[in-house]
Amino acid sequence: MPLGFMAGGRSAGIKASGRADLALIAVTGEPAAAAAVFTPNRFAAAPVRRSRAVLAASGGWVRAVVSTSGSANAATGQAGDDDQARVGKIVATALGIEPEDVLHLSTGIIGTRLPLDKVATGVAALAPDLRPSDEGLAAAATALRTTDTTTKAATVSVALPPDDGVARSVRITGIAKGVGMIHPNMATMLSVILTDAPASPEILAAILRPATARTWNQLSVDGDTSTNDTVFLLASGAAGGAPITAGSSAVQALAGGIEAVARDLARQQAADGEGATCLLTCRVVGASDDANARAVARAVISSSLVKAAAHGKDPNWGRIAGAAGNAVLASAAVLEAAGLDADEAAAMAGTAAWVDPDRLRISIAGHLVFDGVAGGPQPFDRAAARAAMDGAEITIDLDLGLGSGFGEAFGCDLTETYVRENSEYTT
Amino acid sequence: MPLGFMAGGRSAGIKASGRADLALIAVTGEPAAAAAVFTPNRFAAAPVRRSRAVLAASGGWVRAVVSTSGSANAATGQAGDDDQARVGKIVATALGIEPEDVLHLSTGIIGTRLPLDKVATGVAALAPDLRPSDEGLAAAATALRTTDTTTKAATVSVALPPDDGVARSVRITGIAKGVGMIHPNMATMLSVILTDAPASPEILAAILRPATARTWNQLSVDGDTSTNDTVFLLASGAAGGAPITAGSSAVQALAGGIEAVARDLARQQAADGEGATCLLTCRVVGASDDANARAVARAVISSSLVKAAAHGKDPNWGRIAGAAGNAVLASAAVLEAAGLDADEAAAMAGTAAWVDPDRLRISIAGHLVFDGVAGGPQPFDRAAARAAMDGAEITIDLDLGLGSGFGEAFGCDLTETYVRENSEYTT
Repeated sequence: MPLGFMAGGRSAGIKASGRADLALIAVTGEPAAAAAVFTPNRFAAAPVRRSRAVLAASGGWVRAVVSTSGSANAATGQAGDDDQARVGKIVATALGIEPEDVLHLSTGIIGTRLPLDKVATGVAALAPDLRPSDEGLAAAATALRTTDTTTKAATVSVALPPDDGVARSVRITGIAKGVGMIHPNMATMLSVILTDAPASPEILAAILRPATARTWNQLSVDGDTSTNDTVFLLASGAAGGAPITAGSSAVQALAGGIEAVARDLARQQAADGEGATCLLTCRVVGASDDANARAVARAVISSSLVKAAAHGKDPNWGRIAGAAGNAVLASAAVLEAAGLDADEAAAMAGTAAWVDPDRLRISIAGHLVFDGVAGGPQPFDRAAARAAMDGAEITIDLDLGLGSGFGEAFGCDLTETYVRENSEYTT
Repeated sequence: MPLGFMAGGRSAGIKASGRADLALIAVTGEPAAAAAVFTPNRFAAAPVRRSRAVLAASGGWVRAVVSTSGSANAATGQAGDDDQARVGKIVATALGIEPEDVLHLSTGIIGTRLPLDKVATGVAALAPDLRPSDEGLAAAATALRTTDTTTKAATVSVALPPDDGVARSVRITGIAKGVGMIHPNMATMLSVILTDAPASPEILAAILRPATARTWNQLSVDGDTSTNDTVFLLASGAAGGAPITAGSSAVQALAGGIEAVARDLARQQAADGEGATCLLTCRVVGASDDANARAVARAVISSSLVKAAAHGKDPNWGRIAGAAGNAVLASAAVLEAAGLDADEAAAMAGTAAWVDPDRLRISIAGHLVFDGVAGGPQPFDRAAARAAMDGAEITIDLDLGLGSGFGEAFGCDLTETYVRENSEYTT
């Protein structure tokens, strides 16, 4: 747990099961700097709209994050917005802060209202119980879960270079839930990353957008993007020292640590995809640039045919080549987030990724199966390849042979369990 | 069977099963005008490359179409290109035409070479047996199939208005195979549309591109786009009369007939999707324009969660709303094909479709389940809705309430059979 935060989680009775469904994170000192990435879904839920407004009004300084699980508060109209504002007041009262200091997360069934009385009782009980400890954060992480089979957390320590005269060690810890969960309309992916580094909202935003483009935007379980998807990044500054200055090597070090946490969480989320039995990773090197590499990696791990082949431990290079050949670059917004300038992003958005069959090399679980330079399909030990695919992670490596662009993407196998659990009568 | 063509199909022994795997269509008189739409996949197969070259060299005038099934001749390098050129020579010799008169289709396993000796023997046996009859075309349609469970054909007659002084009736018939077939790497979708109307290659191309954008580009079984996907449109002119002139109402009448055939075939292909038990249709009205309507329709029928809910006969409007909120406009190439000018297409490509939750109405199988104008979720008879979903086609209707744009898309439910048959060891 980074310095400057306290956290906790408990059951507020939103879920009928009685499992933990309410999480609170509070800042112990001065307001923390904050940045966020929200779902691009046009049906952005009330907690997303509320959080956007809070960040805009405060300029990116907050004192708490509240998360409810069991009801998404999505597609609930003005009444849902009013409910979410009321949650802010409940939390503010319990913590002695202002409603405008509170960021919001929610996940669960679409179209149902939040049970405000239960939230109020739960928050009142939880607020005095928040702890500035790993246990407190673990309780919050558990309360984020819907039908996740694992609690997801990741942490790194980063030694910041002494740009400002003093070397500092800062902690970065993230918790997450999702994605592609079994329960209907619970595919939401949520994450909160906390650090005790002293960084401004502007620096955090500049770090979070490209980190998200390289990690969570490269994560796909079933292609779904929920109405509630949210990532928050909060910096308490409690590690001490002068604020990190833009453009310094300390920013780079902090960004590296934050991206490492995001990547670790995204991998955990992919591995826990709905019905999944293994993590499916695609690494692409030799692309004309990073955006092309990411597009190809994403196309491979998103292909239903590749995902089904992964489930069958089938080293089916034809499906991988076919998916790579279909890769399309991301939207202009994602390309801009990843660092392209606006004109470049607009020109590239939605175009086919650059792949040359005569230069492509494909390896599955370490076995070279296709080499365009050497004429195409390569002989390989099929039994050994199948055995190598029979683990917790299958890695597909592509070398496009075109340049020095790198990208990776994270998914999971497609299983009969996914279909069965999503086709059972659930509305 | 439109006038001016003869066709047939037989087994050439490419498939080990002994099923028909060779189709030939030949023009009986002067060369036919031709237009084509090919896969955008970067791994375009040898038959696609060969057909592109034939059309470029001839200016769009051809005398035959040959189709082989069982081997895709994809990812086979220069040797595959040489093989496909050799197929052209075999067909030309048998029909007494030039190799440059022959268009090519192929579907089957990626990475295997065509058995040229079997193709040669088969073509020699089939060429004398071509017939200018429905039976001949049906035999060709059967030979297109890989693991299709149905033979797909559609036909319409169109009365062309007497632009040129004489009213004429023309026939338009299409055959097709695919998509998303069970066998590995056989997801190819192929179609040939024949008409006896007298139209130039330029008029055919101007008709085929937008028709494809509104039909086949709106068809998704599992999101796969194969290395071999091809649509050919051939016009023999054998119905007689002067050539149709660009901009005339005869062009509009012909275009309407061709799009009707393409739409019918696309619906048959969706209904026969891999493991599918029902056709899933999404119709969108009230969009800000047609491109937005098509994007939303495509997003809905492509969503794994919506497809699984369709399988479970679950009127799950939350998943539909979520998918609609994620809709992204097509690539610039597809938008241009559909009629947008280049600048407009470039600006819109890859952007989020315009959907407003407060204006959206959703009906499932005729039951209004969500009305954003009326505050959101609507009470409906759940048992009746489930019963209405239990048929050969499930229709989802969306009214975006924003304008007069219309679009539709065709898919199928996602079943355990799809996963099982695609995850079995098949390489």
